[in-house]
Amino acid sequence: MSAATLSKPSAKKRGEFAADDARADEKARAPLPGSRKVYVESGRARVPMREITLSPTVAADGATRENPPFRVYDTSGPYSDPAAEIDIRKGLPRLRAEWIAARGDTVQLPRPNSEYSRKQARGDSRARFPSPPPPRRAKNGACVTQMHYARRGIITPEMEFVALRENQNRIAQNENEPANGGGGGNGSGNGKNDNRRGQSFGAGLPPLITPEFVRDEIARGRAILPANINHPESEPMAIGRNFLVKINANIGNSAVSSGIGEEMEKMTWATRWGADTVMDLSTGKDIHETREWILRGAPVPVGTVPIYQALEKTGGRAEDLTWEIYRDTLIEQAEQGVDYFTIHAGVRLPYIPLTAKRLTGIVSRGGSVMAKWCLAHHRESFLYERFGEICEIMRAYDVAFSLGDGLRPGAIADANDEAQFAELRTLGELTKIAWENDVQVMIEGPGHIPMHLIRENMRRELRECFEAPFYTLGPLVTDIAPGYDHITSAIGAAQIGWYGTAMLCYVTPKEHLGLPNKDDVKTGIIAYKIAAHAADLAKGHPAAQARDDALSLARFEFRWLDQFNLSLDPETARAYHDETLPQEAAKTAHFCSMCGPKFCSMKITQEIREYAARMGMSPAEAAARGMEEKALEFQSRGGELYP
Amino acid sequence: MSAATLSKPSAKKRGEFAADDARADEKARAPLPGSRKVYVESGRARVPMREITLSPTVAADGATRENPPFRVYDTSGPYSDPAAEIDIRKGLPRLRAEWIAARGDTVQLPRPNSEYSRKQARGDSRARFPSPPPPRRAKNGACVTQMHYARRGIITPEMEFVALRENQNRIAQNENEPANGGGGGNGSGNGKNDNRRGQSFGAGLPPLITPEFVRDEIARGRAILPANINHPESEPMAIGRNFLVKINANIGNSAVSSGIGEEMEKMTWATRWGADTVMDLSTGKDIHETREWILRGAPVPVGTVPIYQALEKTGGRAEDLTWEIYRDTLIEQAEQGVDYFTIHAGVRLPYIPLTAKRLTGIVSRGGSVMAKWCLAHHRESFLYERFGEICEIMRAYDVAFSLGDGLRPGAIADANDEAQFAELRTLGELTKIAWENDVQVMIEGPGHIPMHLIRENMRRELRECFEAPFYTLGPLVTDIAPGYDHITSAIGAAQIGWYGTAMLCYVTPKEHLGLPNKDDVKTGIIAYKIAAHAADLAKGHPAAQARDDALSLARFEFRWLDQFNLSLDPETARAYHDETLPQEAAKTAHFCSMCGPKFCSMKITQEIREYAARMGMSPAEAAARGMEEKALEFQSRGGELYP
Repeated sequence: MSAATLSKPSAKKRGEFAADDARADEKARAPLPGSRKVYVESGRARVPMREITLSPTVAADGATRENPPFRVYDTSGPYSDPAAEIDIRKGLPRLRAEWIAARGDTVQLPRPNSEYSRKQARGDSRARFPSPPPPRRAKNGACVTQMHYARRGIITPEMEFVALRENQNRIAQNENEPANGGGGGNGSGNGKNDNRRGQSFGAGLPPLITPEFVRDEIARGRAILPANINHPESEPMAIGRNFLVKINANIGNSAVSSGIGEEMEKMTWATRWGADTVMDLSTGKDIHETREWILRGAPVPVGTVPIYQALEKTGGRAEDLTWEIYRDTLIEQAEQGVDYFTIHAGVRLPYIPLTAKRLTGIVSRGGSVMAKWCLAHHRESFLYERFGEICEIMRAYDVAFSLGDGLRPGAIADANDEAQFAELRTLGELTKIAWENDVQVMIEGPGHIPMHLIRENMRRELRECFEAPFYTLGPLVTDIAPGYDHITSAIGAAQIGWYGTAMLCYVTPKEHLGLPNKDDVKTGIIAYKIAAHAADLAKGHPAAQARDDALSLARFEFRWLDQFNLSLDPETARAYHDETLPQEAAKTAHFCSMCGPKFCSMKITQEIREYAARMGMSPAEAAARGMEEKALEFQSRGGELYP
Repeated sequence: MSAATLSKPSAKKRGEFAADDARADEKARAPLPGSRKVYVESGRARVPMREITLSPTVAADGATRENPPFRVYDTSGPYSDPAAEIDIRKGLPRLRAEWIAARGDTVQLPRPNSEYSRKQARGDSRARFPSPPPPRRAKNGACVTQMHYARRGIITPEMEFVALRENQNRIAQNENEPANGGGGGNGSGNGKNDNRRGQSFGAGLPPLITPEFVRDEIARGRAILPANINHPESEPMAIGRNFLVKINANIGNSAVSSGIGEEMEKMTWATRWGADTVMDLSTGKDIHETREWILRGAPVPVGTVPIYQALEKTGGRAEDLTWEIYRDTLIEQAEQGVDYFTIHAGVRLPYIPLTAKRLTGIVSRGGSVMAKWCLAHHRESFLYERFGEICEIMRAYDVAFSLGDGLRPGAIADANDEAQFAELRTLGELTKIAWENDVQVMIEGPGHIPMHLIRENMRRELRECFEAPFYTLGPLVTDIAPGYDHITSAIGAAQIGWYGTAMLCYVTPKEHLGLPNKDDVKTGIIAYKIAAHAADLAKGHPAAQARDDALSLARFEFRWLDQFNLSLDPETARAYHDETLPQEAAKTAHFCSMCGPKFCSMKITQEIREYAARMGMSPAEAAARGMEEKALEFQSRGGELYP
């Protein structure tokens, strides 16, 4: 990578970080096993993909057949490209800088507009990012959001990038062979693939996702393309239910644990394993500096919850929050480049009593802070009252709203209650206001919901928030498994993703228990890649099906390395296999330690097929028409398939 | 415990096991943290439960309120009862022996009816169980199945046991307080509980599960009570969709790995963490002896796939299988005490061609063996043709059918295809024949199914197999995550459990890669306890809801130890918490390292509630009616909740 690491951790206090110590971790810059970075170009876009090399299929007679490489969506940015030169003290290449400047609707500011940022710049924190770029802002009165362009019929380079990226498996196929109306999907690229039924997604491929389609979904508000003009390092991506289901990974320190180096490491680690966005939820020290390092190094959009930092500025006293402090925090973060803000503007004063009878009250951090403020002042939330002014800020940098569900249930007992749905209706009302300002919006969702109540959440969100993308935390389908909430929530996430949620916020095994470490981050990511992919499959996405087919075929053909490398976590798959059969020969063996050589059903099935082939018929014929004679012949040879 | 362990593993070859070395592992005999074994008696049944001690709730003013203990279903048998004396070389106490004898419809055989068993008894294997009990069999012509009794209106002690066991949370409540029509559920036993909405399961508790209800469900074929008369050590349990969703753990060695000691350890380990049944899928050496040790030590029903051992007897040559070898294997295993047999009698000759176009062909081990036999002989399966004779054996010992899905799909691409559903129809046909013989039946289900095709499986099973209990493997909802198939399959398992599957066969992280070890077994179990419990919740089971509520409340009240101890894996939950906050004081702290002390939403919510209470009103009133004055007062005191 990439991630800043502490060169002499023992020499400093825990959590202390200094820019001079930031080093690239060369080991984490290696591509995943069997993979290389490729770039596909079209129009103004040059889209990175991960290409997995496959080994040839070896038939029973020893004949081999090549398998074309398989391309997958790649969120890891330049880090996994050994050819990329990265100095993390300078940040990633500013991929979108020229596109943004070329639009001519922004100006570079001589200094930040945020007072707090200016104060920080005058300070001499050792942790400060060496050369933060000067911020950019819309020219007076201009709107610079992707929604603004889309509604005016403009296709931005960002939209072209997204279209290419969302189609990549199919493009990979198209390079190898013309698209056909048959198998549905691609990439596994072999005859077997034509044999399976296209049940899930009908005959043939759906139309390619075009830049026009991306534009129209953004214009309609059904998708967002989070792309702050001050975060040009980010590779464009879309969040919407007509695109691949995305996942977010939360990182960030708390007052109790973790420092900048660790959080940067989590960020690159998260994107390496597939996080489509990261949220920096830091609440501890060096919150401004942590964010700067993360943004300059993040190849994916970054979200935050600005109220956390605003609260730090009041010394943690919710009742001391003011619109002025909050407003300056929004500007501070917008000028650093945060791509979306969670804003709990739906936690209104009259809804707080609705939580009184709950088993676990208000469990959203931002929600509880705002509730405390409202009660202390007995006033309506300033986030709600000032929503129009917030929109003014968002549109000047293209920060998207992630309208927070501050009243989400925190226990199965509290699911789908009055407080939750009252807030959702308000989020719908706010969505309309944001859209009037051409500001992009997604809606945050729960939380803790038993399976039978999940669909109702999706149904209401679509109706009451006008199909704005839904972005849910889990949901956890039970509360009785702390330590395993990546699983309790992946169950709910897969379902709600299938129903239409556009982005799933991951949950790690440490949820409810402590701050996740790097291993927890990876475990959470993989659980959520599973949920998102299962949802894509259930929605009939051909690229998703193609990857399953490619892996299934590798499994059937005992191409063990391909099976590992096509999986979400090649390292773990291989390690588990090698635990009992570490020998190199076992990588082509027609069995594993699970059933042993005599009991491998896949081996027996292959034997049946090969036997039938030698008898000059397909297995279908072999069983369907008279085969008694052949059977006798087989028996007379001693019944051995390979005499 | 209990599990036999090798005293001097280094002195012997890997996998070798000798009875003299069998030792009880005292450490594994400790109850789970905060738990003790209790027994509830009613009629002839004495049912073990695990009782979790809870700590008192401490209010802001220091007042404490006791929380009654919480009881949960307990599958761990006598092992977790420190008062039980266990000599694993003699086997567990024969709990049901008297009930079986008292029915007067069985005889004790002077020696096994199985030729193979007699041969083994004459041998001198060091691994042999020291004193296998003489087998018991139905008197000539008698039927000794629980279904037989149920259909004649008889309530057996086994049925009484099940009724008590399925109701245990409610019984626990009834001891503390009379059942009420309000909160739905029990055990959390405190006022807060009345506050949550009973949305999921309407007003009040559903009727208690009575012995009559258990009998009627068994008579109807909608539930089974697996209880071989030769496995009296097993604690009765029911599998049916009107009971708690159950889970099965597969254990057993393969030719490549693992010995008797390890498999026995996995068995006790699996039941300790919640396996309702175990299947011994051994295919390696000492297969007869391994099974004897497992049966004599298993407090739960044990299933097998007899074709595995039959194939071993032919030296692994599927085409050499005969009805005679298979028949003797059924008798051998029935007389050892196996409670249910997986029998792939639905893999018929005409269905084999239907698998020819599949991506991964036949992936059931038993299914592929039978397909090979059918093709080699070009004959209909002897399992299908001899099904009536098989029923004769099953009814003489009360072995239940688990009708195997030998043609289940092994890849997402092959889900819900013609082969799979053709076999399912045949399983329905066989169910009717079994029921005519009063033999209990459950139906095995897939496998690999994307989410949108899962419900169709349940719908067809109920219709075509007349509501016989469904017993599914997963299903896995995607193939791209080897190493994490406990998660890919828990997603599908939770869904199909909610739709009506009665028992979920677990999948471990090693699936497709190797034989699971003890850690993998536990991980698989916990993932499946989550799936089963989530299904119970979604089905509106009050006992399931009660446990979620108890844990949620403990979480809200910062009773950390209770939160750990009420969870499915107290040890992991505590370890994760202690990773960052190991101090004893953190066990009552009003925060954790995830958000730190200032940002704990639960703490803030409690502060809001306590503040409102001190102001002499509920939070509802506080926000609903004029509170401005109070707010000013609050502010004038400096805005501190605790001045």
